[in-house]
Amino acid sequence: MSVPVGNLLAGLPSGTLPDEIFTTLTEAAASSGTVRIERILSTGQASPDGFWYDQDWDEFVLVVQGAARLQLEGEAERALGPGDWVMIPARQRHRVAWTDPTAPTVWLAVHIGEKQPPETPGQGENA
Amino acid sequence: MSVPVGNLLAGLPSGTLPDEIFTTLTEAAASSGTVRIERILSTGQASPDGFWYDQDWDEFVLVVQGAARLQLEGEAERALGPGDWVMIPARQRHRVAWTDPTAPTVWLAVHIGEKQPPETPGQGENA
Repeated sequence: MSVPVGNLLAGLPSGTLPDEIFTTLTEAAASSGTVRIERILSTGQASPDGFWYDQDWDEFVLVVQGAARLQLEGEAERALGPGDWVMIPARQRHRVAWTDPTAPTVWLAVHIGEKQPPETPGQGENA
Repeated sequence: MSVPVGNLLAGLPSGTLPDEIFTTLTEAAASSGTVRIERILSTGQASPDGFWYDQDWDEFVLVVQGAARLQLEGEAERALGPGDWVMIPARQRHRVAWTDPTAPTVWLAVHIGEKQPPETPGQGENA
């Protein structure tokens, strides 16, 4: 049986990329929506000023490698390093305030109950 | 707003533990069952000889740190290291053939659509 496999740390760039790279690793159907597991690769990117992700599904994020700062609306920025995870509930507005520009930051994101394509800066209604 | 947070690499033991430690990080309801995100800490443990996990839900596993060998029924063992992930479909029998006895192995597991308490060696019907 062939099952989906991969390595989150494979093929990392040596320099800075123009944009973040979002890669869906796998999806499973759930009757409430899908569970979509994604790798996010950041090389210094951050959410645009004033942009907030505002999702109607829960998102679990884990920093596998690197360094970032995540801001939940109404809170100070949280510094995240390897192993740090945050469960972001639906409707909790949040943004990526900073990612390390000197080395790749690799995130694992689990989108739980997503009902629509991912919202990205420049496309979302809050952009 | 207080959200669930943690660090997968915090509080790792310096030696070998008698058993693996399974820690549920967070759960979200889905009408098809729950999505349960778990840290598994291994320090040399493996599934008992002849034991197979046989789950009726999909499980995504990621090795965050350490080294392990995962066997899917009918296949050779797969060596897993940091960043390696495998999406194990429901009903794909599998077992942990080996984990590094010299340093902690930290897994992230996402159980998708789990309908019953986790099956563990010694408690499952296949034990």
